[in-house]
Formats: sequence, C-alpha cells, structure tokens
Amino acid sequence: MDIRKPLIKPSLITRELKPENQETPIHFIRQGITPTEYFFLRNHFDYPTFTEPAYFLPVEGEVIRPAVFNYEDIMLMPSKTLVFPLECAGNKRAYFNPEVYGEQWEDGAISQGIWKGVPLNHLLNFTGLKRTALEVVFEAYDYGKRKDLEGTCHFARSLPIQKALHPSTLVAYELNGKPIPFKHGYPLRLIVPQWYGMASVKWLKKIIVIDQHFKGPFQEIDYNYYPYRDSNEGKTPVTNINVSSIIQRPLSNSILDTGKHILEGIAWTGTGVIVEVEVSTDGGKKWRKAKLSKDLSQPYSWTFWTYNWEVTFKGEYLIKSRARDSSGRSQPLEAMWNRKGYGYNAEYTIKIKVE
Amino acid sequence: MDIRKPLIKPSLITRELKPENQETPIHFIRQGITPTEYFFLRNHFDYPTFTEPAYFLPVEGEVIRPAVFNYEDIMLMPSKTLVFPLECAGNKRAYFNPEVYGEQWEDGAISQGIWKGVPLNHLLNFTGLKRTALEVVFEAYDYGKRKDLEGTCHFARSLPIQKALHPSTLVAYELNGKPIPFKHGYPLRLIVPQWYGMASVKWLKKIIVIDQHFKGPFQEIDYNYYPYRDSNEGKTPVTNINVSSIIQRPLSNSILDTGKHILEGIAWTGTGVIVEVEVSTDGGKKWRKAKLSKDLSQPYSWTFWTYNWEVTFKGEYLIKSRARDSSGRSQPLEAMWNRKGYGYNAEYTIKIKVE
Repeated sequence: MDIRKPLIKPSLITRELKPENQETPIHFIRQGITPTEYFFLRNHFDYPTFTEPAYFLPVEGEVIRPAVFNYEDIMLMPSKTLVFPLECAGNKRAYFNPEVYGEQWEDGAISQGIWKGVPLNHLLNFTGLKRTALEVVFEAYDYGKRKDLEGTCHFARSLPIQKALHPSTLVAYELNGKPIPFKHGYPLRLIVPQWYGMASVKWLKKIIVIDQHFKGPFQEIDYNYYPYRDSNEGKTPVTNINVSSIIQRPLSNSILDTGKHILEGIAWTGTGVIVEVEVSTDGGKKWRKAKLSKDLSQPYSWTFWTYNWEVTFKGEYLIKSRARDSSGRSQPLEAMWNRKGYGYNAEYTIKIKVE
Repeated sequence: MDIRKPLIKPSLITRELKPENQETPIHFIRQGITPTEYFFLRNHFDYPTFTEPAYFLPVEGEVIRPAVFNYEDIMLMPSKTLVFPLECAGNKRAYFNPEVYGEQWEDGAISQGIWKGVPLNHLLNFTGLKRTALEVVFEAYDYGKRKDLEGTCHFARSLPIQKALHPSTLVAYELNGKPIPFKHGYPLRLIVPQWYGMASVKWLKKIIVIDQHFKGPFQEIDYNYYPYRDSNEGKTPVTNINVSSIIQRPLSNSILDTGKHILEGIAWTGTGVIVEVEVSTDGGKKWRKAKLSKDLSQPYSWTFWTYNWEVTFKGEYLIKSRARDSSGRSQPLEAMWNRKGYGYNAEYTIKIKVE
C-alpha cells in the first residue's frame, strides 16, 4: 500500500459518452498550452473506424488539377505552427437564460494547443482553382444518424474561398508536438484559427471545391444563431469566436479571508487581439484594468490576466471580468440569446464570500 | 498510432485540488457498486503523511480498559460487510436558491461501496465503557488550518454512544474487496451507514470516549443546519441522510425524439428504506410510480428506478422524480435552505426538449 504523497490531478468533465463529449477542467489549468490529455472532446457521432484510406486526402471539384495528397507528402510540405484556443461554439451554453438544449458546456469547451500543418492554400495552389470556385467543403470520416434527417450523414463543413486560402488555415498533422491523437482528428485535421471549433474538421476525408453554397446540416441547420425560440427568422451562420474571458481563480461560490488575493483568468477573441481586461469587484459599478500577459509571437493565442484584490470587509462580493479586443468588441452585460446556445460571451461573473 | 476503437470513459468531476475534492460522474455510472476509481473524494485538509503509527488504533478516555488495537488484530476480528451509499452532506449544494458558499457539488458527492470492517461495538465491548461515557470522538490523521480558528486542528467528529454501539458502525479496512485506498482513509476508516459522510472519519488515529458533548469545529461550526443567513438561531446538527433521488438519464437539457424512452435513476435515504419513487413528466401535476429494483440483502443500499415514458408531442418537458421512505419522509418541492448548504433533497427536476 503506497502511502506516499498521492497524485492529485484534475479530470476532464464528462458531458456525454455516446458520443464522447468532455470538457477541459479549465479552472485548474494555468498553463499556456492545454496538456493533450486535458484537451476538450466534442463529437457529433461515434468515433470513425478506418485504416489505410485516411492517409490519402483527395482534393476535387472546381479545381484545375484534382489531386490526392498522402500523409507523408503533406508532412514534407512547408509547415506552419500556430498556438491558439480552439473553442466550441457551445462553450458556456449552460449559462444562457432562458436555458437552451444541447450539451451543457460550462467554461471548458476551450483548449489552447500547438497545431502544426501545411497551409491549405499550398494544396489549393497545387490543384489550382476554377473561376467558379465559391466554397471549399471538408468532409470528415465520422458519420451517423441525425434526429432530424433520414439515413446517415458524414460530418462536413465548408469555408468561403477566401477563408480557405487564408495562410493560417491549415491541414494539420501535429498537436502539441506529436501526431494528432486519434480522438482529436488523426491523421489530418482542418484547423481554422479564430473560428469556432466546428470549422476545424477532424478526420479529414475529402476536400471538395464547389461553385455554390454548401447545404449540409452542420452548415445549414446547426451552427447558426437563431435569435427566436419558435422561428428561424434572423438566422446567421456561426463563424468567428466572440471576445470572451473567464475568471479561473478564485472559483465561484468560494469562501476567502480578508486580505490580499490574486484574481486570475484568461481572455480571448476571434476578431483581433485582446487589448484590455477589466475587473469589477462590486458587481459592475467600478471597473479597473487587469494586468495582461500574452505570448506576443503568437497572434491568435489567448491572454492571461491577473488582478490584485485587497479586501477589507467581510461580506458577499459579485466579481466580474470583461475583455475588449482590437476590433473594438467587448463582452456584453448579457449574452445574445439564441435557440441553439452558441457564442455565449457575457461578462464573466462569480460570487465570493469573505469571512 | 492506435486507431482501433478508443477507450471512452467518464472522469471524476474536479471541484477543488487543494485540498482534493472530486465528485463521482454519477450520471454515467449505472452499476450497483461505484467503481473505486470513481468514488467521490471530499477532503478538508491536505492528505496526511504517516507511516507506521497509522497501524495502531488507541481507544481511550471513559473506558474501563484502555487499549491499542493494531491493524492485523482488527482484521482477525469478526467482520461485517455492508453495501450503502456514502453521501457528502454538501451533495447537490449547487442547487440551493439563494445560492450558498462552499464546494459546488452537483449530483455526484455520493458513491455506493462495499465496506468491510469490524463493528466498533466489538472494540468498545473489549475496552468496556464507564457509566460516564456520553460520546465517542474519532480523531483523524489529517489536519490543517481553518480560516476561522488560530493554529491547526485535526479532523475529528463524535457520535452519541448509542450510534457508536450500533452494530452497523464499523471500523473498516476494505472498500470494494480491497484494502481501503489511501485517499479513502487507509488503513482504518470509521464507517457510519445512513449518516452523511462527515461521520465516516478517514485515516482513524484515535478513538476517545468522553463524558460530555464534543466541541470540535467540524462538530460545532460545520455540519450544522443554519436556517438563517445572518444568525445562528435554529442551528441543528447534520446527522442522517435525507431521502433523495436523481434522474440519471436522460441528462437535463438534452434533446429527445418522440416515441418511447426509459427514464432511470437512483433513490436513497438514511431513515429506513425507499418504498416509492414517483415520476412526473408535466412539471409536477400528475405523478406515476416508477419501477424499483434493489439488493434486498443490503438494507442500506440505494434503490434503482426506471420509468417508461412514451412521448407523442414535440415540445419542452419538465420531468421530476421524488422518493418516499419507510419512515414516511418524502422529497419536498423545495429544499430546506440553510446557510452552509447541507442536506439538499428537493424533488429532482430536469428539462427536456422533444423534437
């Protein structure tokens, strides 16, 4: 019986197992890079089964020279390595009021990894694009049944041609310095920094350039903001990550002493960089600037913030953080409610009791 | 790279790491016995450090023949094996309204194990009790600082003499057929079925019979129901587990098809046995009986329940479960609010959308 100092570590937070959906224990991870074992898992279907074919990636459709790239070829191409948070569009869904349906993600459907791959524009330059090319469809190996459709379908998403050609849109093969783990999309995963995670298609099976708008259910039904409960009016596609932040420590509803405390958290955005995080310790009346720290070599990476709080009086405190980005966006007091619960980014609020 | 069917399993849910507090992923465990790796962890202090002394258990105070029992002796004594849920008094604390402070346990600060040990009354028969004996104090090896007291203190709790002599109050040395894991109290743990978990003192260091009421902070400050926010009036000790239930599946805020579904859950109590679980699928207007199943050889074990639900119409549904026990207690519509957030047992409620 081993009674030496026992191993104490956080765990993924299970939201569902069929299919597997687990979130990062983000309040317990203060590293710049989320360790791969704590990377959140978001699946629409069971894990795919395949062996050899996955190592071949056809690029076809409205291209001049259709081609099949293989895994080894792709690894020999000029590569790019990017550090950035991948965030599920449903992150923080549990906080919508009125509540919405679907996986009840709290703060951890977001993880920051080091992704390495070849820019997709390198492959598209090789195949060439016909003048009719409008969107690029990424079809994945995972498939299954949807409640709202007959038969089965594969997960598939498209990007507008300009986003597909953006030099940071990658066909990635490494996460955190190792081949992408199977659960995260091995062998090849599309990586689209600054967009919500649904765009970063795992287990890439095929790339098809098309001359129209893609109508797959993960494009046309899911991953749209529906502002109304009972109508599809105002439907808008989910794309860039909203500016957002969390307070990592202290945890909400915890009890602190009077004296000095360090509040700490993360802020991130899909439209520029974080330029300011403000903290309020009186429920939003007065705001003061937090101290920011960021890996400046990585334009898309998240920003850590800290705030020194000295508290003299016992009582209950409502503490808030709100971030602002270089595009002028900042976190709203209330999130824009939408029926499927995407893009929650209201001011982050915790309650603390000082005893 | 292994691309065979990947291992998909739930995880403990981390509430805190210093000290370690993690809950059972109870919605994903439908076994009668919670696997040891998924047993909830609730600590007030860092894990204790000790080597040899832990194998000796002194029993002293108001006894006729003070004695030191050792681990091997205890294992040779007549043993008893019990299956029952150990529930933290703060389980479901996150659901109190108005919200309360402390670890925000949801449904999983409860686990059902197979505990084996010697009835404490066997040890107390050996030492004999003086006529002055009123309570039995259980001092643990773990210790640390409390925010509200100077210096450090050990975790310690007492039982009234009758409860200490109850044949199901054990000095346990096995959990689920193996020596109790260090994190769960190795080598010896007091086990008090039907009381909330604070009574089941881990890492037993010493047993002291006393002639007065024990005044330790985990007896006199914590683990009392305080009905008022700003006064200690009405303070009542936390003892027996309240009658309670959960709906394990479906998960709250999930989306179902029209058609047949099986609702499933658990019910338990610390005052008798569960005699009825009712389910409402219309927010509490109509109630119907669920089907119960229980290991009848184990009087304290929890009861599984299932309910067949056929749903014809699309829409949103408020589904509730409520249990009733043989002492006549049943789950209230609203939990009795108390400042430290113990004993939450309101009717369990989930929201479901049928599409």
